[in-house]
Amino acid sequence: MSAPAQGVADPGGVSCASTLSLIALTGLPRVAPGDDVARLIVEGLARAELELQAGDVLVVTSKVFSRAEGRFVDVSGVTPGPRAQALAQEVGKDPRMVELILRESLEVSRRAPNVIIVRHRLGFVSANAGIDLSNARPREDAAPGPWALLLPEDPDLCARRTRAALEERYGVSVGVVISDSHGRPFRLGTVGIALGVSGLPALHDQVGRADLDGRKLESTLTALADQVAAAADLVAGQADEARPVVLVRGLSFQATASRAAALLRNPSQDLYA
Amino acid sequence: MSAPAQGVADPGGVSCASTLSLIALTGLPRVAPGDDVARLIVEGLARAELELQAGDVLVVTSKVFSRAEGRFVDVSGVTPGPRAQALAQEVGKDPRMVELILRESLEVSRRAPNVIIVRHRLGFVSANAGIDLSNARPREDAAPGPWALLLPEDPDLCARRTRAALEERYGVSVGVVISDSHGRPFRLGTVGIALGVSGLPALHDQVGRADLDGRKLESTLTALADQVAAAADLVAGQADEARPVVLVRGLSFQATASRAAALLRNPSQDLYA
Repeated sequence: MSAPAQGVADPGGVSCASTLSLIALTGLPRVAPGDDVARLIVEGLARAELELQAGDVLVVTSKVFSRAEGRFVDVSGVTPGPRAQALAQEVGKDPRMVELILRESLEVSRRAPNVIIVRHRLGFVSANAGIDLSNARPREDAAPGPWALLLPEDPDLCARRTRAALEERYGVSVGVVISDSHGRPFRLGTVGIALGVSGLPALHDQVGRADLDGRKLESTLTALADQVAAAADLVAGQADEARPVVLVRGLSFQATASRAAALLRNPSQDLYA
Repeated sequence: MSAPAQGVADPGGVSCASTLSLIALTGLPRVAPGDDVARLIVEGLARAELELQAGDVLVVTSKVFSRAEGRFVDVSGVTPGPRAQALAQEVGKDPRMVELILRESLEVSRRAPNVIIVRHRLGFVSANAGIDLSNARPREDAAPGPWALLLPEDPDLCARRTRAALEERYGVSVGVVISDSHGRPFRLGTVGIALGVSGLPALHDQVGRADLDGRKLESTLTALADQVAAAADLVAGQADEARPVVLVRGLSFQATASRAAALLRNPSQDLYA
């Protein structure tokens, strides 16, 4: 796909439009288990009188899919095992939450008072395995909880299915990014990152594009899908679940079968693992 | 300042517009030592027939200020000291480049074949102390080099001066972010980050904003200036020095005396330091 979006198309392939627009859809209902997320996006676009164009990218917070998949856990019903109990005592967290974190993780990366950083079963490293305690109730009349919301089972699959439904509905090639907010080593504050991706490259490899002196660029692999997620986070807001979908218009990219794991450094090659 | 930009103003203060536009200025000349960057931005805006509005944010790649400050080094004239020679032999890099990296750094964070990751004198952690070998020649007729380009002396000062000049010219409050591209632990690909900032908060603290259930959000410090830099990188391109300035329109934020160091985790509290 060569996107005829506004801006300057880059013959190299990716992300060089001169103008980019990010539009947060408003008025989306709170998602419930079993909801069809693609249908909710189509309805949101219709309310905003927007038709998707070739090359548009939809960024959807993972929480929407977590809710649609019913990934709610009543923490009051979780029984911590011995490993969770030991770790909970070490860091001073609720043993039931630690049990949930360990169930969702491959290994513990770092621990400190009130902090558990893990390598999630999906491969990325983050605090608390991405488990969310805010806006985590399945329904208004749900048991008192507390409730936790796990990440979607397979965010790449969420992206692929959503992309397929949108492409069928609008008849154009689009991209979909499933986003979350992560902390980082060295730097404070969370940033949006891509948990799932379909239709646009997760990474953009600029190796071989000459610079203005004709030298070859040395380190030019950019995290395209992560930067799209970070940009979308600027308009999505974090506490406001009514704006979990952002339309990004003006990127140009080649359609591709991508996956978010392409953004993950191999632990054996990670100097900070 | 309460920015009357398009989109929904957030009474909490920051980054909750429903529409965001990013416009890369085109046709900027290659910056030479002594150039007035703010004047070049004003000329670029005029060519694009754009007037700055209250709440606009300009994202400028640090390389522009490096060139304006004349931070070029002819690597052929660098004499590596014993520490640089030892480290260069260990990792297999040019000892002259290692000397430059060490001069710009507080400490070495990690080393591996062909990799040196340092804590820069400005406090952030990155590969090669942010020293650039692409587009690093001061002039067409410069000595053969090779040439390296160091980061600006004080990116926050670049941001403050640029902001002051733009606010005087346009009579409105704006923000300025000085950006660079960094690699990251755990994740592949570079992302835009803020090396300098003025006028908008580096971090946006959402603590205390209730979620839709009335619970307080737990971890809600977002890296506003980093996300703005990442978003701008999507339209700036990396190899194309003719688009080092991006106008971001549609954020809403309170004007503030900010600094990029607010984005840096204290090393003593960094589990990966």
